[in-house]
Amino acid sequence: MTTIVKENEIKKCVNISKDIIPIIENAFVSLSKGEAIMPPILRLDIHENNGEVDVKTAYIKGLDSFAIKMSSGFYNNPSIGLPSTGGVMFLVSTKTGKLETVLLDGGYLTDLRTAIAGAIAAKYLANKNIKEVGIIGAGMQAKLQLIALMLVRQPTTVRIWARDFDKGEKYIKEVSSKINCNFINCKNPKEVTEKSDMLITTTPSSAPLIQYEWIHKGLHITAMGSDAEHKNELDPRIIQNCDLYVADRQSQTSILGELHHALKANLVSKDKKFTELGDVIDTQTKGRKSEDQITVCDLTGTGVQDTAIARYAFEIAMKNNLGLQLD
Amino acid sequence: MTTIVKENEIKKCVNISKDIIPIIENAFVSLSKGEAIMPPILRLDIHENNGEVDVKTAYIKGLDSFAIKMSSGFYNNPSIGLPSTGGVMFLVSTKTGKLETVLLDGGYLTDLRTAIAGAIAAKYLANKNIKEVGIIGAGMQAKLQLIALMLVRQPTTVRIWARDFDKGEKYIKEVSSKINCNFINCKNPKEVTEKSDMLITTTPSSAPLIQYEWIHKGLHITAMGSDAEHKNELDPRIIQNCDLYVADRQSQTSILGELHHALKANLVSKDKKFTELGDVIDTQTKGRKSEDQITVCDLTGTGVQDTAIARYAFEIAMKNNLGLQLD
Repeated sequence: MTTIVKENEIKKCVNISKDIIPIIENAFVSLSKGEAIMPPILRLDIHENNGEVDVKTAYIKGLDSFAIKMSSGFYNNPSIGLPSTGGVMFLVSTKTGKLETVLLDGGYLTDLRTAIAGAIAAKYLANKNIKEVGIIGAGMQAKLQLIALMLVRQPTTVRIWARDFDKGEKYIKEVSSKINCNFINCKNPKEVTEKSDMLITTTPSSAPLIQYEWIHKGLHITAMGSDAEHKNELDPRIIQNCDLYVADRQSQTSILGELHHALKANLVSKDKKFTELGDVIDTQTKGRKSEDQITVCDLTGTGVQDTAIARYAFEIAMKNNLGLQLD
Repeated sequence: MTTIVKENEIKKCVNISKDIIPIIENAFVSLSKGEAIMPPILRLDIHENNGEVDVKTAYIKGLDSFAIKMSSGFYNNPSIGLPSTGGVMFLVSTKTGKLETVLLDGGYLTDLRTAIAGAIAAKYLANKNIKEVGIIGAGMQAKLQLIALMLVRQPTTVRIWARDFDKGEKYIKEVSSKINCNFINCKNPKEVTEKSDMLITTTPSSAPLIQYEWIHKGLHITAMGSDAEHKNELDPRIIQNCDLYVADRQSQTSILGELHHALKANLVSKDKKFTELGDVIDTQTKGRKSEDQITVCDLTGTGVQDTAIARYAFEIAMKNNLGLQLD
């Protein structure tokens, strides 16, 4: 028997909330403690259609199921009225390998666990009293990262920069109805960076948008846009010179994240072992050490997050009597 | 909208047949001609439960969809009355990345495309007039490989060896009702090898079962059991000394197949470029050159086969008005 849960059912009962924070935190801790097996990402590029597909998975020891997650990004889709991203998650029994559940989430759960990872990064790395937040990009994650951030911090001003100024306007119109902050649409990322206590970069840029010269004491940056070899949002000198660089998984960020570009430019040593987000959560002593520190969290997205969110979504869907059982 | 096709629906309309041979042949040809993009396999091992999960995919240029396939092997399952293998395939649009179809095949389509690959190997590599066939192993593929072989060759005698003699008996009881041959259950693999014109090895053995000393002129071996680093059915000297070694995909067999062990033992050079099955099919001059040649085909299972069989199964299911459409 396999249970199929549809996107509208998942959206009905699973939303960004404080409940999910410890679930994703535990996933990161299991990873950094060596209690998870997470193989390298399977990636397929379809260049002629400007598309990419990732498959991620991770087995967290002790759990009775694990997720296999496909997520897609096809960047010509908006021109035909479709969202760029999509996906599906499966839960598989860790005991028998049996397919137990298909979550037809269309990428929704990936969006959600990514936003919660951003909130976790802010919780442990951003100063407690941040007031001014900067957002780079105006897509889905630009919105969700801010909504999730509100679970752990209380900013009063949000500055946004998007390559297309009108998209910034649209973003503000939409998000300001949900979040009680002062929103400012900026003409350049320099202004956003210089005036922010915390910066969230959410673009698929392939050249740095944030320059080293703009960063300042006390700033925390969560860079979550880069999840492929060619993607790069931060000037690599930021990685080299920040006080604390934290990877979601160093073996991934060194290939797919901001760290990759700092390594390629020989600005950091290949042998350097950086702190991972799970270590920061687990020890509570490896995060920010003073209000002045400049911190960076590099998020590429991990299979343990997928296993954690898929199990959570399935549990909630079952509690709500949702899903279709097929024999 | 996503279409869900159940296992019993797939089994109702898709079976081993001659129709599937050109479909899988075309897939191999696309691979060897560089018309497919096939990333490395994603593999997750769950050692404490004697289980493994593979994810395979391949995009074949020009096609409007590609498959992502999960297959599992959990070898403690029979002790609780479950089959060892399982799986699911889904079809994704090559234009938009959208999930189009979920084939809840439970591993059936993997079994089928694997058996057809064996038939293709025999079609191009085994002598035309083979009479005596040897089967090593008594599992699902031991049966399906023989059934598929009958599509392309007419043997009269089948010798089988299984580690458990009783399983060999059971195999003969079951298969002899479907295939009109003389079946002989043998006490050792030596007898099977020495008396066969063609040998099919189908076990998950981690030490060679077939010794170099037993092979002889004219023999064709299809080794399809090894699909993981530790698996090994053939004495590596067979790979070193046979007249023609053919890989389904050399980049896979050098890691997961019989070739892997010959490389590890330094019996063949890392730089040697071997023939691939797609080349043999495409050129029709790269296969067996004389009746005396000893040939080996090393099958590890490829994503292009999955894309081909999943598209075929979906097409047939739609023609039969099967499947459930979910919005």
